Amino acid sequence: MILYDSVHAPNPRRVRFFLAEKGVEVPVQPVDIGSAENRKPEFLEKNELGGLPVLELDDGSFIAESVAICRYFEETNPEPPLMGVDAADRARVEMWNRRMESEIFNIVTGAFRNTHDFFKGRITQVPAWGEQCKEWAPKKLEWLDGALADRPFVAGERFTIADITALCAIDFGRVIGLQVQAEQKNLTRWYEAVSSRPSSKA
Amino acid sequence: MILYDSVHAPNPRRVRFFLAEKGVEVPVQPVDIGSAENRKPEFLEKNELGGLPVLELDDGSFIAESVAICRYFEETNPEPPLMGVDAADRARVEMWNRRMESEIFNIVTGAFRNTHDFFKGRITQVPAWGEQCKEWAPKKLEWLDGALADRPFVAGERFTIADITALCAIDFGRVIGLQVQAEQKNLTRWYEAVSSRPSSKA
Repeated sequence: MILYDSVHAPNPRRVRFFLAEKGVEVPVQPVDIGSAENRKPEFLEKNELGGLPVLELDDGSFIAESVAICRYFEETNPEPPLMGVDAADRARVEMWNRRMESEIFNIVTGAFRNTHDFFKGRITQVPAWGEQCKEWAPKKLEWLDGALADRPFVAGERFTIADITALCAIDFGRVIGLQVQAEQKNLTRWYEAVSSRPSSKA
Repeated sequence: MILYDSVHAPNPRRVRFFLAEKGVEVPVQPVDIGSAENRKPEFLEKNELGGLPVLELDDGSFIAESVAICRYFEETNPEPPLMGVDAADRARVEMWNRRMESEIFNIVTGAFRNTHDFFKGRITQVPAWGEQCKEWAPKKLEWLDGALADRPFVAGERFTIADITALCAIDFGRVIGLQVQAEQKNLTRWYEAVSSRPSSKA
C-alpha cells in the first residue's frame, strides 16, 4: 500500500489526520505539486483528475478523493469510529462532513484557487468567484460558531471526520487571511480542542 | 419517517431514484421551492441551510444532504447494495460518486444557480462563475464518455449511487442546454441503460 501525499495541501492533511487518529501507518510517497508532478502522465495514471492524495492498494488499484480513502480505512480499521457508529449516526456524520466541505472547505479552496498567483496558468481562474468566496468565508465561520453552541464537536458528542475537514479547511484559510475570531467563543473552544490533538500535526 | 421533497430539483431526485432502487417507500411531504417555502423558519428548523431533500427520522431528528440520506437507507436496507460491497469497492464507489459531483453535478448546478433568472434575488449570483461552468460542462461529458469506455457503469460492473448522481446531473443540465452527444457512444449507451430503469422515473 502507498499513500501519494503532499505536505502543504489541505486534502492530503485530512487523510494524514484521519490515519493518525486510527493509529494506522501507511508508506508515503511525496508528490511535488509545486513542480506540477501531479499533472504529469505518470501521476495521471494513478488519478486521472490529478488530485492528491491517492491511495494505491496492494492489488495495484488506486483510490482518489480524500473521503473515499478515509472510508477505506474506516472499513478496514474500524476503531476508533470516525464516520459514525450506527445508521443514523453515520448519516449525521456524513451530513456534517458534507456541510464542512460545501460551506467551509470548498469556500476556502475556491477563494485560493481563483485568486492566488500559485494557480495562474495552472487552472482557469475566475477571480470574481474567488472574491465572492473570500467574502463568504468569515460569515461561514460565524455560522459554524453558532452551530457549535450546543455540542463539543461538529457532528455531536464525538470527534469525527467532520472535525478533521473543518480544521484542515480553517487552517488552510490562512492563505486567504481567514482566522477564527476571539469573540467566536464556541469556535475558539472547538478550534483549541481539535488543534491540540497530536493527530492534527500528522 | 417523512421525506421532505421537491419534484423539479436534482438533489431530491437522487434520493427518490435511490429509494426506488431499494424498493423502499417513505411518506413524502412536498416543499415548494418556487415560493421559497424552504427558506421559511419552519423549514429552516429541519435544515438550517435550507436545502432539499431532508429526511425526518422517527425520533424527530433530521438528516439533510442527499448522500447522507442515501447512506442511512444503505445501512437500514442493504439490498441491493448501491454504495459498494466491500471496503475497496465502497471506497471506489465513493470516489466515483464524488467525481460525478465535483465534475458534473456541481458544474451543472453552478451554471444554473449563477446565471438563471430563477435565482436572481434569492442568492448571490456570480455570473462569471456560471458562464465558466457552462463552458466546462460539455467537456466534462466528453471526459465521462471516455471514462465509460471500459465498463458498463460509472463505478464499474454494477449500477451504483454514482450512476444516479451522474444521470440526475446530466438530465438537469437541460436548464443550461447540456446534452449527451450522439458521437459520445459510451455515454449514450450508458445514458440509455440508466434512463431505462423504472427507478429513474421516481
